[in-house]
Amino acid sequence: MFTSRAIGFVSSPYKDAGQVPKGLGAKHEADGVLTILPEFEVGLTDIEGFSHLVVLWEFDRSHGFELLGTPPSDNRAHGVFATRSPRRPNPIGLTIVELLRRDGNELRVRGVDMLDGTLILDVKPLLSGVPFEELRRGWLAEAEARKR
Amino acid sequence: MFTSRAIGFVSSPYKDAGQVPKGLGAKHEADGVLTILPEFEVGLTDIEGFSHLVVLWEFDRSHGFELLGTPPSDNRAHGVFATRSPRRPNPIGLTIVELLRRDGNELRVRGVDMLDGTLILDVKPLLSGVPFEELRRGWLAEAEARKR
Repeated sequence: MFTSRAIGFVSSPYKDAGQVPKGLGAKHEADGVLTILPEFEVGLTDIEGFSHLVVLWEFDRSHGFELLGTPPSDNRAHGVFATRSPRRPNPIGLTIVELLRRDGNELRVRGVDMLDGTLILDVKPLLSGVPFEELRRGWLAEAEARKR
Repeated sequence: MFTSRAIGFVSSPYKDAGQVPKGLGAKHEADGVLTILPEFEVGLTDIEGFSHLVVLWEFDRSHGFELLGTPPSDNRAHGVFATRSPRRPNPIGLTIVELLRRDGNELRVRGVDMLDGTLILDVKPLLSGVPFEELRRGWLAEAEARKR
């Protein structure tokens, strides 16, 4: 077990959860900045070479968890581990962003869906993808089909 | 800030770090089991519909962090946030696995690279992929090219 620590924070256009695009067909194309704290900046060495990053961050404005919940994209309840709900046993969020540019300890990225000021826990390079045609998307695909 | 808690553990063929395929061209095709603790099993509701899962887990046999390190796939040092090093400020590992089958609180999966007994922090459905041809892989692609 460990206690989380912030390595930086997100600057995002979203000031509260109601502003983040959610539900079916939501697009995450907003630009933002990941500011890494100066004491961790050396850890960014050579990150410029990667086109996409996995950002792990803390759901720091969400409290407690629920094992079943109804997401914005459906009117049926699903298990928390089958959704992206913020109310998880470990409040860790994950976003894949495109790296546009690094300026020192600031990473300019596209595709943020975090709230402004969100604490960053980790950044990792995205090394492989699963082809979209190989992906089955369970209840989400069913909810999309029902709305068509 | 939060204190991590295990939601389950991994059963894997790898008993120590030396057995995990590493370095250039390493394939992660081993089968394993994610056992979710009974008190969290309801959180798995409807997970069967997804083909791929993102597993977040704890580097529980690694201590401390280093901002620069030389990975098994290269002979040059890179920043921790540009690698998958276990020695990170927050010791969180990430693996994308294929879900083969669910048996109650056990998820049979393909593609594990964790050690046997690793503590699981979170499971999320993989909802989208980045096409491989759009991915730039920085120092890793350069290291591969030098070895060819």
